[in-house]
Amino acid sequence: MRTMNGEITKRTVTPEQLQEHIGEQVQIHGSIYKIRKMRGFAFVLLRTARQVVQCIYSEEKAGFSLDELVEESCVIFTAEVVAEERSRTGYELHLLSVEVLSKPEEASPIVINNKLVDTSLENLLNYRPITLRNEKERAIFKIQEGITFGIRKFLQENGFTEIHSPKIVYSGAEGGANIFRIGYFGREAYLAQSPQFYKQMMVGVYERVFEIAPVFRAEKHDTSRHLNEYTSVDFEMGYIESFEEIMQTETAMLRSVTEYLKAYYEPELTLLSVTLPTVTEIPAIRFLEAKELVAKEYRREIKDYEDFEPEEEKLLCELIQKKTGSEFVFVTHYPSKKRPFYAMESAENSEVTESFDLLFRGLEITTGGQRIHSYEEQVAKMERLGMNLSLFESYLMMHKYGMPPHGGLGLGLERFTSKLLGQENVRRATLFPRDTGRLEP
Amino acid sequence: MRTMNGEITKRTVTPEQLQEHIGEQVQIHGSIYKIRKMRGFAFVLLRTARQVVQCIYSEEKAGFSLDELVEESCVIFTAEVVAEERSRTGYELHLLSVEVLSKPEEASPIVINNKLVDTSLENLLNYRPITLRNEKERAIFKIQEGITFGIRKFLQENGFTEIHSPKIVYSGAEGGANIFRIGYFGREAYLAQSPQFYKQMMVGVYERVFEIAPVFRAEKHDTSRHLNEYTSVDFEMGYIESFEEIMQTETAMLRSVTEYLKAYYEPELTLLSVTLPTVTEIPAIRFLEAKELVAKEYRREIKDYEDFEPEEEKLLCELIQKKTGSEFVFVTHYPSKKRPFYAMESAENSEVTESFDLLFRGLEITTGGQRIHSYEEQVAKMERLGMNLSLFESYLMMHKYGMPPHGGLGLGLERFTSKLLGQENVRRATLFPRDTGRLEP
Repeated sequence: MRTMNGEITKRTVTPEQLQEHIGEQVQIHGSIYKIRKMRGFAFVLLRTARQVVQCIYSEEKAGFSLDELVEESCVIFTAEVVAEERSRTGYELHLLSVEVLSKPEEASPIVINNKLVDTSLENLLNYRPITLRNEKERAIFKIQEGITFGIRKFLQENGFTEIHSPKIVYSGAEGGANIFRIGYFGREAYLAQSPQFYKQMMVGVYERVFEIAPVFRAEKHDTSRHLNEYTSVDFEMGYIESFEEIMQTETAMLRSVTEYLKAYYEPELTLLSVTLPTVTEIPAIRFLEAKELVAKEYRREIKDYEDFEPEEEKLLCELIQKKTGSEFVFVTHYPSKKRPFYAMESAENSEVTESFDLLFRGLEITTGGQRIHSYEEQVAKMERLGMNLSLFESYLMMHKYGMPPHGGLGLGLERFTSKLLGQENVRRATLFPRDTGRLEP
Repeated sequence: MRTMNGEITKRTVTPEQLQEHIGEQVQIHGSIYKIRKMRGFAFVLLRTARQVVQCIYSEEKAGFSLDELVEESCVIFTAEVVAEERSRTGYELHLLSVEVLSKPEEASPIVINNKLVDTSLENLLNYRPITLRNEKERAIFKIQEGITFGIRKFLQENGFTEIHSPKIVYSGAEGGANIFRIGYFGREAYLAQSPQFYKQMMVGVYERVFEIAPVFRAEKHDTSRHLNEYTSVDFEMGYIESFEEIMQTETAMLRSVTEYLKAYYEPELTLLSVTLPTVTEIPAIRFLEAKELVAKEYRREIKDYEDFEPEEEKLLCELIQKKTGSEFVFVTHYPSKKRPFYAMESAENSEVTESFDLLFRGLEITTGGQRIHSYEEQVAKMERLGMNLSLFESYLMMHKYGMPPHGGLGLGLERFTSKLLGQENVRRATLFPRDTGRLEP
């Protein structure tokens, strides 16, 4: 019987450790990203977990032929770490020998080792397992990881408990046509459009909760901002005095995330030339005021008093940035008609809700608001809307047995990432996007 | 236009802050968990985000009648923090006044504020939104949060990148009948049984990746250890020298998690009287040896040479603990017939695979192993198994264009939690379980 003690002795060093080995021989593993032949020597770029490491091949030092190296081969190099003042890192890596772990069957049909993957979005996504190996492509999702780590850190420090709610559900949270149906042991079930019901229930348990998980929307929209499956960052908090507390919490969270990215994701931010937004103060404007402001400023006619057109969201952001410098803007008090049945209406005007969206660089990235916590009030509203109460028995259970005033929000991770990186299409910030036409890879 | 600056000034203090306010008046919010009437006064237990705080009601001090307080009411108390040497906390909380934020419509049909919720598992789950309010019930999922936080911290520190892979997929990773079908814009799609394909693809990108997300299994088993939706902790790592590296990494991870729980979740561990396992060394035994050992030791006949019976897993764990003291045991080299098409077979014997399960306290909680990384080898094996290669084009893309030796594992979060807490049924450690009969709440 063997025994595992949790120790792994790797014979290879990581790129981060090279500094400590100047003047020594080391072994380092990675994938050959690019071979650049020069006069009398060659640069061999090795793709490692996070960095692309430059190695120098010369015939006199290396005990092997350059022909043995193929791009996208996985190798272990033995190399000498030579001090070199002129190098940014303070050393050069001179190749001595190579152990080839694997070779590609053939060369990729798409060139992935240039600065950019020069192909159509369609191809970029079709060949995702390969195109993600490009240095800039993979940096996108490293930053996305940083966003979720930053969010988790902030929420954990602020007393939120992380939950895992079911994605197969009996009834859809928001209802409507945009719901995926699944066969469930002879019954029909749905894919959750949001963790809304569950996060509310859990406010009754932990006061503050969050979840970062997939949600599913069967929307037929085929636009640059819609996905049929995306990662939703949801939080919900109890004992709020007004829905402004939710906006304040999101403001603090976004500030915290940008600081986290600055601290830990500088290499990727630099590689992608990302300009992080400054999150000092975020203006909040009422929906109707926003509509009128945009109409007046840009001499547009208001066609729809209940919703924004995408163009209006862009113009509003442009305007707010010009006026206040903020790239974010909260739009508050959306019409009751356009908000779900659990949205709390304003005390002074039941036509509008205690709700908000957050727009960032022209796009809605968050929807949130205060929810109805009184059983009586919630039941009355559902009856007014002609809803079948019996379908919501387990949801209403929490109201029936006591709930604090509460509210929360959902933030679309891919939308936020794409806008942060200045991308035009949300698919660019989705690892393996799902849309009406795409189920693969 | 208003402005959000990210600051929230709460008028209430948290239980953790009470210590700093001895001798002062404070406001504190929460839900009334239990009222215990004594001779001349009453204990009022206030359920807050993480603690149940004991308050003292006496007619002379309080400016309100005890009748105003109802269990599961949400309130803001004004109270005096009185120094009291005999109290464990060093103070007592004397109620002065109350602001009632909400009242339950009626009393819960299930008593939730005793030490245990004394009801059937069926009822416990039917009334989840309410029964989770019980102090011990909610402690289960607080510890579960601690497990994921501990895992994330370990993986982050060890160079793993967190990913979000799609749950709606074109073909099932493991195939077979246990797959949920969904309608997808006129086509048929499936719910992912695991992130297997995607985490492998991402090894080609980041070398080491992980994901903590829901997976879906349409298994008809209705046992104490099966769920149709559960949270899978998956990691996958490249450049391994053998599959032992994966077991070593899991050993280190489990050790790290128990230390994390000890450091940050002591209140819940104490409340639930949890005995954390010691993770110093985990024995690893070959599948066939394990079968024979159990057969010999317990005088059992081996009926199935390709798999364990649940009873055998229990007996093996019992035996290993007796012999080595370890509550964990790795079982290695499972028969090739029982492992998926991507499992790497042992060089010395193709009848077995470079794979393992981890058993803990009688139950399999992890399956892992090394994967085939050579295109040629993978295609040959798939052809031998009569598989339709055209369905796996995007999966095989990674092999075709070069992959490092790699492997990984999946750990069932709910199974691990339930065994850690000494529970008999995995549903006890699932927030809102899904099984063949349960879709609600």
